[in-house]
Amino acid sequence: MPEEILNDISHRRYNPLRGSWLLVSPHRTKRPWQGQQESPSKSSLPEYDPSCYLCPGNKRAQGDVNPKYETTFVFVNDYSAVKESQAEYTQEGDPSDLSNLLRAAPVTGKCYVLTFSSSHNLTLADLSPAQILPVINVWTSIYASHLSPSSPLSGIPLNLPAPTQMIEKPSAQYTWMQIFENKGAAMGCSNPHPHGQIWTTTGLPEEPAAELQQLIKYRKEHGGRNLLEDYAKLEMEKKERIVFENEGFLVVCPWWAVWPFEVMVVSKRHRRSLVDLSEQERKDFAEAIAEVTRRYDNLFETSFPYSSGIHQAPLEGTEEEINASHFHMHFYPPLLRSATVRKFLVGYELMAEPQRDITPEQAAKRLREDCGGELYRKNLE
Amino acid sequence: MPEEILNDISHRRYNPLRGSWLLVSPHRTKRPWQGQQESPSKSSLPEYDPSCYLCPGNKRAQGDVNPKYETTFVFVNDYSAVKESQAEYTQEGDPSDLSNLLRAAPVTGKCYVLTFSSSHNLTLADLSPAQILPVINVWTSIYASHLSPSSPLSGIPLNLPAPTQMIEKPSAQYTWMQIFENKGAAMGCSNPHPHGQIWTTTGLPEEPAAELQQLIKYRKEHGGRNLLEDYAKLEMEKKERIVFENEGFLVVCPWWAVWPFEVMVVSKRHRRSLVDLSEQERKDFAEAIAEVTRRYDNLFETSFPYSSGIHQAPLEGTEEEINASHFHMHFYPPLLRSATVRKFLVGYELMAEPQRDITPEQAAKRLREDCGGELYRKNLE
Ligand SMILES: [Zn+2]
Ligand SMILES: [Zn+2]
Repeated sequence: MPEEILNDISHRRYNPLRGSWLLVSPHRTKRPWQGQQESPSKSSLPEYDPSCYLCPGNKRAQGDVNPKYETTFVFVNDYSAVKESQAEYTQEGDPSDLSNLLRAAPVTGKCYVLTFSSSHNLTLADLSPAQILPVINVWTSIYASHLSPSSPLSGIPLNLPAPTQMIEKPSAQYTWMQIFENKGAAMGCSNPHPHGQIWTTTGLPEEPAAELQQLIKYRKEHGGRNLLEDYAKLEMEKKERIVFENEGFLVVCPWWAVWPFEVMVVSKRHRRSLVDLSEQERKDFAEAIAEVTRRYDNLFETSFPYSSGIHQAPLEGTEEEINASHFHMHFYPPLLRSATVRKFLVGYELMAEPQRDITPEQAAKRLREDCGGELYRKNLE
Repeated sequence: MPEEILNDISHRRYNPLRGSWLLVSPHRTKRPWQGQQESPSKSSLPEYDPSCYLCPGNKRAQGDVNPKYETTFVFVNDYSAVKESQAEYTQEGDPSDLSNLLRAAPVTGKCYVLTFSSSHNLTLADLSPAQILPVINVWTSIYASHLSPSSPLSGIPLNLPAPTQMIEKPSAQYTWMQIFENKGAAMGCSNPHPHGQIWTTTGLPEEPAAELQQLIKYRKEHGGRNLLEDYAKLEMEKKERIVFENEGFLVVCPWWAVWPFEVMVVSKRHRRSLVDLSEQERKDFAEAIAEVTRRYDNLFETSFPYSSGIHQAPLEGTEEEINASHFHMHFYPPLLRSATVRKFLVGYELMAEPQRDITPEQAAKRLREDCGGELYRKNLE
């Protein structure tokens, strides 16, 4: 990289997407390390688990029975963090200035669970792009069905295959849809059946709100250009942080990555949300997800834990907000040096600011050059 | 509480200290839970461990030998995240607008380790307030010795006992000092010997910068009143989030707590930093720390993991920044329901915004009413 010296000295990097800084300490990677040799891990799970609440045909906690689905299956979370209806709440209009320190606002919404496959023992890393495409199609149709009728994104023809499942319309217009996945026990996920979640709520949460503010600001200050489109172009020139790319998407360890092997999957062109993607772009996106997850598993020859999530246009918002949005997906994995050595976001990170040791350039090089082959466990006995 | 209904409905709470929101889902605490019965854990560690790099008289990684210290011991971290001297770096003045997306700034500083006791097998929870006081005294003298000579906090008479150890002056004026502790394997701390860290750096990190901005704003908008002084007063009226208080300090599960049993130890009066505390206030602070850590251990009858950290005035800053600062300490513990069931900050929390299930009022009640007795392991055989 032009700034070779950043491989050796402590520095802060700026995250223009969040408008925040992090501390990078690359010299610490020279700490002594008792290299742990772990055997490659193979899944010993059955294809069907009678006690799994996500497997086809099984009964869930509140008595509902899953259909014998073949690809994906969506249902409303039996223990949702938000609900469609609840008792009313209005903050008491206390004239005392002080009580303004105890501000609360009610939140309603709907939480879905989406299985990625009917097989209990597969993960996105095991699936081909063609097998991941149905997941993206379901995300797209759920997102589309929750869009505000007044959104400029509403009514775009989607050209999706006929849905295998009908989703009940929500009873209210929500503001934000957060599509995400927690994978692995290290991320608090207790059920290995491949699945993600979709929470949709009133109000714009903190992270997308921070990003949206930065995206809008950039457009204003740069004559309508888009931050992530410019950033993708810049990374394609520099090349050193790229993990994978195809026609539609770039997979990059961002300049400002916090997690050791954090990646961002970003649309090369300005796409506001899933409904802006062409059929080919949905395929490109599926390939990008397949590449990230397979390379992750190959890195330490283990089923790689992570949290991933999609940021895109809010379901409802001003035209400025919706048009400044730029479709991308974050992957935040905790592993650092092996299947068992992880990074903790604690202490200094919680009290002062995020900190990392290995540089994003070093991480990208490993994911790009060492991890591209076939899934390591394909030929494991 | 006046807003009873907030025990049942999903809502967002505002954190006026950070200027951010979090999602609270109290109805989720009604999820079925296979109550895990774990036996109370007792420390089986020796008082002295010959292989511990923190025990008195032992040799450290880079060859230095610890003195046979009796209370506390400070040294410069052998693997510091920042260093006092490193190669120079200036961001290339690229006229291209694009490269502004790859911003970096060098950081120098000094990282110390501070042991809290010479005994390998004790924790702050095992120490009496009188035994914690020396730790606070060392924090105070290190903080004071790093203050900018131009700070209004510089030169305040401290009335501290003679130091047991001389600390070399840093070679440059740093901006921020972060005092923190990671306790327990759940927080990535591999050495049980009681100790904390002190990182001091150029530049103001993200978290204190966000708080400082809010503190300054509040003063301006409220005729010079202080946010945390007002907040402490309000909590003393409401009582429902208080865990413990003495003359100088309030221990509270803040309205906006993210971690299940998060607490804030806050000076009741406006104190800008450690050097503003009187001798009696240092004693009150020691008692507050003893109360928090003992109650934590009693909660699940285990050595309770947490990250804690002190926020106070920057070492160098404008008069406005220094005078708006308000001394407080955060405790962020991950445990939720037992010694082994923890909260994960993943998925929605990382992608959208922090979320919690049990309310701060419920957490405070347990810490206040159920955990105040003698340390559970005192009489354990
Ligand atoms: Zn994002
Ligand atoms: Zn603070």
